Amino acid sequence: MIMLFFMDQNTREKTGEDGFAEVVKLGQDQPLLLECGETLGPFDVAYKSWGRLNGDKSNVVLVCHALTGDQYVRGISPITGKRGWWENMVGPGKSVDTDRYHVICINVLGSCAGTAGPASLNPETGEPYGLDFPVITIGDMVKAQAMLLDHLKIDKVFSVIGGSMGGMQALQWAADYPDRVDTVIAIATTWRHSAQNIAFHEVGRQAIMADVNWKQGRYLNHGESPHGGLAVARMAAHITYMSESGLTSRFGRALQDRDKLAFGFDADFQVESYLRHQGISFVDRFDANSYLYITRAMDYYDLSASHNGVLAETFRGTKTRFCVLSFTSDWLYTTEESRHIVRSLNAVGARVSFADIEMDKGHDSFLLDCGDMFDIVKGFLKSEAEATGVQPS
Amino acid sequence: MIMLFFMDQNTREKTGEDGFAEVVKLGQDQPLLLECGETLGPFDVAYKSWGRLNGDKSNVVLVCHALTGDQYVRGISPITGKRGWWENMVGPGKSVDTDRYHVICINVLGSCAGTAGPASLNPETGEPYGLDFPVITIGDMVKAQAMLLDHLKIDKVFSVIGGSMGGMQALQWAADYPDRVDTVIAIATTWRHSAQNIAFHEVGRQAIMADVNWKQGRYLNHGESPHGGLAVARMAAHITYMSESGLTSRFGRALQDRDKLAFGFDADFQVESYLRHQGISFVDRFDANSYLYITRAMDYYDLSASHNGVLAETFRGTKTRFCVLSFTSDWLYTTEESRHIVRSLNAVGARVSFADIEMDKGHDSFLLDCGDMFDIVKGFLKSEAEATGVQPS
Repeated sequence: MIMLFFMDQNTREKTGEDGFAEVVKLGQDQPLLLECGETLGPFDVAYKSWGRLNGDKSNVVLVCHALTGDQYVRGISPITGKRGWWENMVGPGKSVDTDRYHVICINVLGSCAGTAGPASLNPETGEPYGLDFPVITIGDMVKAQAMLLDHLKIDKVFSVIGGSMGGMQALQWAADYPDRVDTVIAIATTWRHSAQNIAFHEVGRQAIMADVNWKQGRYLNHGESPHGGLAVARMAAHITYMSESGLTSRFGRALQDRDKLAFGFDADFQVESYLRHQGISFVDRFDANSYLYITRAMDYYDLSASHNGVLAETFRGTKTRFCVLSFTSDWLYTTEESRHIVRSLNAVGARVSFADIEMDKGHDSFLLDCGDMFDIVKGFLKSEAEATGVQPS
Repeated sequence: MIMLFFMDQNTREKTGEDGFAEVVKLGQDQPLLLECGETLGPFDVAYKSWGRLNGDKSNVVLVCHALTGDQYVRGISPITGKRGWWENMVGPGKSVDTDRYHVICINVLGSCAGTAGPASLNPETGEPYGLDFPVITIGDMVKAQAMLLDHLKIDKVFSVIGGSMGGMQALQWAADYPDRVDTVIAIATTWRHSAQNIAFHEVGRQAIMADVNWKQGRYLNHGESPHGGLAVARMAAHITYMSESGLTSRFGRALQDRDKLAFGFDADFQVESYLRHQGISFVDRFDANSYLYITRAMDYYDLSASHNGVLAETFRGTKTRFCVLSFTSDWLYTTEESRHIVRSLNAVGARVSFADIEMDKGHDSFLLDCGDMFDIVKGFLKSEAEATGVQPS
């Protein structure tokens, strides 16, 4: 009893407001078999958690992060020195209430915040993998997450929630581990990458690979980085995260630190200055090869592929309950794509809630203060917790 | 009489099916005063023409080209070896009928197909201008075109027609030379560059300037070219020229020369291969600095700027008749932007026809086979020619 109490105390401290962070080495006995056919192991997986696990381990909420996200949902990120990326959604009393749920966020495979990716050391060579890191998929990311939950002896997840690529993972969880997922909340996401989605990512990859410092992906061996190309990739992507109306209302044609056109190639307009800042600040926190690998995983993503393009078949027989949220001004992953998910789930009798939320901030709305989104997520989780008897920690 | 007959014959030959091409040196006596305050002169202007000028010079149609276009509207382009970019619109019996009209297309200032631009030799140094070329505007382009028409002793233009940046020039003509323009046909265009438009252009410029071979714009002095950056710029822009639905129906997620994913960074998908081709083929025909200058001119474009943002005031008192055409799937210059032009013209009692044409091919629709567009342009020109008594050549 004393021992148990001690562990509880320890757990409480580790999973308090600042969260608990750990890097676990997985795949030592049994490597991860990837979709490409290669195996990976041993490999690191970094995660962070908040809130206490309840007695029957039924209060786990898995938060999945987006393309350039990480496990630092709350608290100060050691990478950026800034507050976590979803503090408005996750925390004590928030929609994903860390007073009730044990929240886990895992840095995805291929990324660069602790989990294995192309910047990690290849145990076979002792040098960074670079392009020798195997190409991964959203399914592989989810498989690695499942391995971590196995390691943590968590069989079942009350909810998997994510926006953008986080939503892709949430849906993939329901597709690949239907018995391990009670509920899925998929926000501002899609069921497959469209031709336009792929096209924008390809521009970003070409920008990186055209940078003379990329050196076929071996830049870390040369102590260099394709910062210019990565910044351009980020700038192009960033436009797709904002709506036309959002850009217009925020910047319009307003000039930056000047009262008339300068007739040159500096950033005359605020929107140029803003975009340049987005590009420049990104390169300090993200690995260029990780950007290649994760965009590739997103492009490969197609939940309908294994069923001849019929998404509904992917979810036939599912017992998972779904909440699908889109934003009216999101032109990256449109309302119509969310509707297709909802129609497919309806077609196989799955339980699904859907809302198309009026926001003019585009795709990035899922990261912003959006009362409707917070209310819907809170209500969905609360009612499902009550219906299934999930006890708070 | 014999002399006149000979000249007519000569003109007929020069302006036949293959067109007449010439480069004129302008601004020798009186240099061009640019909006930035600098002067330019002497400078070359390259143009091409088709069809015969009638006796009272009332049958001139000025075709304005887009960002990466040129004066090779018809016939084989000496730059690409391909057919002209608007042969489906301009020619004998076409909507812009070269049997009736004397059609002129002028390579815009800042471009690289014969008219002065940053790749031209700076007479002061004997070396390519590079960034010493003055920053120009759409208004400057139109001013240079007016100087060429002065040189050709053409006072008045029956119609100015153009799509995209060509449409911007057409509207600028009406704004700056209201007495010289009978009609304007502005297709798939806008009245000012929006924040999103500027953002996409800024990505392209940053891609070029991040290329190590750009060398602060002096690459021609080093016998190099920022091909990688320019290709990325073109790829990013090209996505904005196509609609999401157009990309999906043309490419979807179809693979390129393979029957399954290759798990690498080659072009797995057809849309990637297509985009790469667009990028690579572009760098052979276009100067990187010209891309910087012309995108800058487009970003500076705002027809309402001189009237505190009230576009209607720009056209108050105009006698020009307008035809404004948009495409339903054009998300670069949207239908709403065309509607704003139309509303502004209506507000000052200008004569304007407007059609929003159902096409799923996005912004590039104006370059494609579009029966509705051809019919409307043909009808508009014909009725205006009849109403004003314009005689064919």
